[in-house]
Amino acid sequence: MNNLLSSESLSKEAIEKILQKADSFLGYNGQDMKGKILANLFYEPSTRTRLSFETAMKRLGGEVISVTDMESTSITKGETLDDTAKVISQFADIVVIRHPESGSATRFADNSQVSVINAGDGAGQHPTQALLDLFTIQKEKGKIDGLKVVMTGDLKYGRCANSLAYLLTNYDVELVFVAPDQLKMKPELLKYLDEKGVKYSETDDFKEGIEGADVLYCTRIQKERFADSKDYEELADVYILTKQLVENNCPDATIMHPLPRVHEISHEIDDMPNAAYFRQVENGVAVRMAILTEYI
Amino acid sequence: MNNLLSSESLSKEAIEKILQKADSFLGYNGQDMKGKILANLFYEPSTRTRLSFETAMKRLGGEVISVTDMESTSITKGETLDDTAKVISQFADIVVIRHPESGSATRFADNSQVSVINAGDGAGQHPTQALLDLFTIQKEKGKIDGLKVVMTGDLKYGRCANSLAYLLTNYDVELVFVAPDQLKMKPELLKYLDEKGVKYSETDDFKEGIEGADVLYCTRIQKERFADSKDYEELADVYILTKQLVENNCPDATIMHPLPRVHEISHEIDDMPNAAYFRQVENGVAVRMAILTEYI
Amino acid sequence: MNNLLSSESLSKEAIEKILQKADSFLGYNGQDMKGKILANLFYEPSTRTRLSFETAMKRLGGEVISVTDMESTSITKGETLDDTAKVISQFADIVVIRHPESGSATRFADNSQVSVINAGDGAGQHPTQALLDLFTIQKEKGKIDGLKVVMTGDLKYGRCANSLAYLLTNYDVELVFVAPDQLKMKPELLKYLDEKGVKYSETDDFKEGIEGADVLYCTRIQKERFADSKDYEELADVYILTKQLVENNCPDATIMHPLPRVHEISHEIDDMPNAAYFRQVENGVAVRMAILTEYI
Repeated sequence: MNNLLSSESLSKEAIEKILQKADSFLGYNGQDMKGKILANLFYEPSTRTRLSFETAMKRLGGEVISVTDMESTSITKGETLDDTAKVISQFADIVVIRHPESGSATRFADNSQVSVINAGDGAGQHPTQALLDLFTIQKEKGKIDGLKVVMTGDLKYGRCANSLAYLLTNYDVELVFVAPDQLKMKPELLKYLDEKGVKYSETDDFKEGIEGADVLYCTRIQKERFADSKDYEELADVYILTKQLVENNCPDATIMHPLPRVHEISHEIDDMPNAAYFRQVENGVAVRMAILTEYI
Repeated sequence: MNNLLSSESLSKEAIEKILQKADSFLGYNGQDMKGKILANLFYEPSTRTRLSFETAMKRLGGEVISVTDMESTSITKGETLDDTAKVISQFADIVVIRHPESGSATRFADNSQVSVINAGDGAGQHPTQALLDLFTIQKEKGKIDGLKVVMTGDLKYGRCANSLAYLLTNYDVELVFVAPDQLKMKPELLKYLDEKGVKYSETDDFKEGIEGADVLYCTRIQKERFADSKDYEELADVYILTKQLVENNCPDATIMHPLPRVHEISHEIDDMPNAAYFRQVENGVAVRMAILTEYI
Repeated sequence: MNNLLSSESLSKEAIEKILQKADSFLGYNGQDMKGKILANLFYEPSTRTRLSFETAMKRLGGEVISVTDMESTSITKGETLDDTAKVISQFADIVVIRHPESGSATRFADNSQVSVINAGDGAGQHPTQALLDLFTIQKEKGKIDGLKVVMTGDLKYGRCANSLAYLLTNYDVELVFVAPDQLKMKPELLKYLDEKGVKYSETDDFKEGIEGADVLYCTRIQKERFADSKDYEELADVYILTKQLVENNCPDATIMHPLPRVHEISHEIDDMPNAAYFRQVENGVAVRMAILTEYI
């Protein structure tokens, strides 16, 4: 079986193949997946990711079966994840799983009869989002090597920024992590970057951090992460990207966001050519089409 | 883009085209929508309307992606309806939206990349229901002009009766509104009828109101509308259509209802040839097939 | 109309036809149901059964519309099941219904415009599960006649064991019912077996009961059935099938379970060739493909 469980497990060759395939799938409608069934298993809600995979499968002529409330199904009657995998993988040709617990996608894959795609499991991994982010960078900039990629917001709990950082170690990039102290990148990621020889720096100064960015990857700071809501409010006010900040500090930056966006990117930026966050959505469908054809 | 947002916005020509198309779609199975995707976005539940659209799309060979609990998705994480529209419209070729707030379908359409069909937004608009009701009248009576159309029940909050009344201003009909004082037709609709020169009358006398009807459009009176439940019970007892009433007061009336029906139409009427309310369902699929092909 | 509502209503000829068809559908992908729509109506959740039917329909090239939360839809606004049947059956070519109340599938069928398949209604009936169980016995043993079939666990409330027992009256089998006193087979089933001349015995001794079984059909004992949780715990400890018990008491037994399995079958049995419970899932899809083509 061929599973997509983590960003780290992808070779540069595998990454490049997906990016190339995705490019050919932009705007594509075909029958490549005719007679194939995708099972979407969501143990926590994620409408956006679910619809992206469903659209990808349907635009390839395939069929979809979905469970959007797996947490309220037989699992609650005491069934193990192993048993669930042994059963549900028999209904499909490929399984997409979203689960709140880290490691569960791997465990599911160990018991599955078909390939498993991790669509987010807990804190660390969301490899298909990372691939669509990487694809967007390439589409927007025409290249990945040589770029200064700045990530802002919640870098500790935000699995999108994490997964993208792991993927970027396959390229010659400079990374800047802009986050408050409570939400800094995890030490294991920094260690991994050191091992791979990737140049990076950290700061909690938003304005200074975004300076000269080629790519600005913004993420949301969640109120739930803070014991004291005053701490949250102070930070949330600082970590807001405005049109003026873009024009003054990083006029050439491609601005990205995994969405949903709340206050961290001003709506005045939406009409700037820099704003790539809605284009990420379209790219996401193409990348997932590539992933489905590659892993089925 | 070509959106279907309200009954008033439809020209008579547009209405007639949909009715004609619908007629050709009764009992039809085809591939007209092959390779196209409909996104069903329901911010409030409406199983009947959702299934009607899904069936319409599938009988045309198209694909459907559905969200039945939009109210519990990212919108609750603070995303604006504008952002949601920008994102979700990228997954589909046409969007059907049901939303509890008046005006939200229009707002969604303003930010959508594809056509939007309003499947009910708040108090005023449900244009696809109005079109299927109009189509049913034409099928049952062989014409629309010259008919006396009587509407009974909750005319204030019932968007189905409202939307149908707006559509009927394009025809030479006589309208009778039979409702208790608390649930009378909105002044703005009456004003619109005056402007259009449509003949209408109002009464709270059920028996008198239905006299001589060619079409009887019954709607449910909801308990929630009344502060005093005794008021409700008195009214609910009066606004019940019985077989005897039909035979004595409007023996030729086509009897319609947007469903679900509770007590307002006696079950003894179901077997009368007059009862068209279950035929409305079949007509609804054909009308929605026409709408999908027209607006995509 | 041709409905599948109960095990008892199936003639041996009808059963054999489904088993034969199912055999030809194992691993099959086709277009037999092209242009047809299955409506899945679940008034109580059953992810496994729903996905099994969806997979069956899609592997035959058909389309599916699903309602997974029928109990929270218009029925709660006071609509009768009769009306719901009259409406929803218009959207589909065949309806699969799961409902918590015994008799509701039949009532739905009485008002439906298309064939209805009972996917479990209350305590007594789950005929498609019984057919897949029977098919599994035939696949695993190469025959049904002459077998000793032992059923264990909750035989009173477990509709799977019940439905299978009814089907088995069409064959020359010996039945053994192993259950605690509180959960013994219903008297009406035993009476039915007597009338049909089927040989059976009852015991509450687990070890003795499974002795020499050709087929061991295990079911879960639910805590909710016991007023005193101590009673439950004592029983739950006894009604556990272990590898040692299989090796010593019924080494040739095909071990089956309707799933989900909790503690009643030790996980150490999963790797034994006897363990057929995960193969039942694959068989279930083939049997449901046979049922759909037969009843549509």
